[in-house]
Amino acid sequence: MPTVWASRYASRTKGITSSAIRDLLKVTQRPGMISFGGGLPAPELFPAQRFQEACHKVLSQNSASALQYGETEGYAPLRQFVADKIARHGIKTSPDNVLITSGSQQALDLLGKLLIDTGDRVLVEAPTYLGALQAFRVFAADFVSVSIDDYGLRTELLEKPLRSDPKFMYVLPNFQNPAGTTLSEDRRVELVALAERHGVPIIEDDPYGELRYEGDHLTPLLALDRKSLPRDSSYTSGNVIYLSTFSKTLAPGLRLGWIVAPPEVIGKLAQLKQGADLHTSTFNQFVAYEVARDGFLEEHVQLIRKVYRERRDVMLDALQQFFPPGVTWTHPQGGLFLWVTLPAGLDIQAILKSALEQNVAFVPGDSFFADNKAGRGRSRQSHMRLNFSNAAPEQIREGIRRLSEAVKTHLASMSQPSELPLEV
Amino acid sequence: MPTVWASRYASRTKGITSSAIRDLLKVTQRPGMISFGGGLPAPELFPAQRFQEACHKVLSQNSASALQYGETEGYAPLRQFVADKIARHGIKTSPDNVLITSGSQQALDLLGKLLIDTGDRVLVEAPTYLGALQAFRVFAADFVSVSIDDYGLRTELLEKPLRSDPKFMYVLPNFQNPAGTTLSEDRRVELVALAERHGVPIIEDDPYGELRYEGDHLTPLLALDRKSLPRDSSYTSGNVIYLSTFSKTLAPGLRLGWIVAPPEVIGKLAQLKQGADLHTSTFNQFVAYEVARDGFLEEHVQLIRKVYRERRDVMLDALQQFFPPGVTWTHPQGGLFLWVTLPAGLDIQAILKSALEQNVAFVPGDSFFADNKAGRGRSRQSHMRLNFSNAAPEQIREGIRRLSEAVKTHLASMSQPSELPLEV
Repeated sequence: MPTVWASRYASRTKGITSSAIRDLLKVTQRPGMISFGGGLPAPELFPAQRFQEACHKVLSQNSASALQYGETEGYAPLRQFVADKIARHGIKTSPDNVLITSGSQQALDLLGKLLIDTGDRVLVEAPTYLGALQAFRVFAADFVSVSIDDYGLRTELLEKPLRSDPKFMYVLPNFQNPAGTTLSEDRRVELVALAERHGVPIIEDDPYGELRYEGDHLTPLLALDRKSLPRDSSYTSGNVIYLSTFSKTLAPGLRLGWIVAPPEVIGKLAQLKQGADLHTSTFNQFVAYEVARDGFLEEHVQLIRKVYRERRDVMLDALQQFFPPGVTWTHPQGGLFLWVTLPAGLDIQAILKSALEQNVAFVPGDSFFADNKAGRGRSRQSHMRLNFSNAAPEQIREGIRRLSEAVKTHLASMSQPSELPLEV
Repeated sequence: MPTVWASRYASRTKGITSSAIRDLLKVTQRPGMISFGGGLPAPELFPAQRFQEACHKVLSQNSASALQYGETEGYAPLRQFVADKIARHGIKTSPDNVLITSGSQQALDLLGKLLIDTGDRVLVEAPTYLGALQAFRVFAADFVSVSIDDYGLRTELLEKPLRSDPKFMYVLPNFQNPAGTTLSEDRRVELVALAERHGVPIIEDDPYGELRYEGDHLTPLLALDRKSLPRDSSYTSGNVIYLSTFSKTLAPGLRLGWIVAPPEVIGKLAQLKQGADLHTSTFNQFVAYEVARDGFLEEHVQLIRKVYRERRDVMLDALQQFFPPGVTWTHPQGGLFLWVTLPAGLDIQAILKSALEQNVAFVPGDSFFADNKAGRGRSRQSHMRLNFSNAAPEQIREGIRRLSEAVKTHLASMSQPSELPLEV
């Protein structure tokens, strides 16, 4: 029997469902499972000893402040730390440009609240980060999807969608979730110019930017956007808002992310954050600052890069060795994910079912497309998002082997003549 | 010059301003200030040593889980802990009835998202918790205010507003913020009956319930609502959703609150929480569980009660000693606040200005009324919310003395004949 509450749910909740990934995560916790499903960092790399020291210091020297209510905008030294990080890209930022959020996911929620009226168009990549779709969908965004290829968002397809006056574009330039692709330097320049020309600003989501395993670091859209201005001008305007997080470099369990934007926008977002959760955990901000400071973060990121690079390479090798012809995948230069494309006509949910029976998990690609509800045709190719950061190298090899068996079985059954009479 | 973003703000942001309290908090951090402004717990009572031990245990035994992503619904042992707390009121609850939130403020945001469509009526007390007004206003709630008196919400005034079909009622039965009043047992029974009769459910917000300094604990609305059911029936339906927090008993810097509701509602709220912040800090949940367990929380609450009771008594005595005739105040049986009512015609903002000059702060009452924008007449009485948990007893005495001077000065100037010609 539905509760009295069910009859009172707001209309915005109609389209809201649980994330395929979050639900899958529950299944993948069973013993023996090799999971390529989540976007989980390798827990053995969490700097537990450094956290011990940081907690001890914070609680022995600063417990009265660290356990108390704090400012909505965030802990001042942590805001300064983030401003200094950004300043390395040649952008003059101050703590006033920074809002600390309860994970990067909250940044998406607050930006959705700030910017999206019912039916507003939001331009997203196809595929894109599922959590952004979830966050924006609550505010009844009307998504406009633009394809990506190996060089990221296909900027040559943008003119027409930009003329439909979207509120903003949401882009992941580095080692994109889910596809692992990186927006090329040329396209970055082009994208920033298009934003300026059409007056459609950009939300640049960069959770993985520091986790690069090959090639050179590319310029953030935020920095390109500000290039036309005198080098010492304060960041008080511009077409790009930039998001990042400590989740992939320190620990996701802290739920610490940030928004970099003009102070006027930060002020408005802080008002919305007051109503959403007052402020982000003071204790976690104090602890993260103590962990990250004095060069530890940069040093620790070197370790993560080394370990994840090896895991990526093991996965790429295993895919090459085990996967059948006709299946392709991306070659990510960093981040946590790669993206496998299967021949048209395969039933991805059936493959997932077989894979889970073999104790291996992945995320089916459908959820990452904004229009996945609008009846994407069966003939379209299907995809798997594979995470390579969480499992150990030997597990990755074994998992890819098991997964290849599931794929091969379904490929074989597809090439059998259909038992159903064909209607012509 | 406004940014490109400012022209793109959603219409819901038009009415959103910063909370008077959050802004005031910044002023009150200057040295020498005696603040009755915030709702800040006494930091010297934070159990820092117990936190040290808990952090050490969690990080040495469980860092791989405690620093990792976690389930949206919350850390299972903490959900069980909360379910067990609720069960003491004779309600059969399980962890499925509990959602851990990023502070109780997030509970309000999620419930607003779940329940409020533009223009929906929401019945609130006058005055009520400012943060709830902020949270619900974003979803364009149309507030219906019902007065309170010394016995809480005036249930005899509810029939008419309930016939206007509000989506829900939002009520703080214990030591209400801001007024410090407690809903009487008779009125609780009446309120729950009215909810049932009119089909208008209740959100019961109970952040201070455990902090009682005199008298007997009264039955939560949640327990009264379930009284008609067999004692062993699971909590799968009902007219009351219950909220509470660790902010006033352990530490607000953790940002840990919870919602108790039927599992179906918890499931829906968890979907919304995924989009809002994925989940609440895993680390803080592990640490709070280790701090609270084995009877520590109950024991610690005894200490808080003792200290706050003394502070309340000091404030009541000082008010009696220093405040001029014509000023009245509530006598809270618990919680953090009392509520001062000044004679009609006093300019509360001018009094605040004088008070801040004397290094003493309070929150003017206006912000706690949902209709404060709708031009409350000058003749209406004005109010001060005074917090008594944060300052030491000797500061409380001195602060009330300073405050009384500011009030007396303004009272005296009011009784001077007006220099303006009267138009009759």
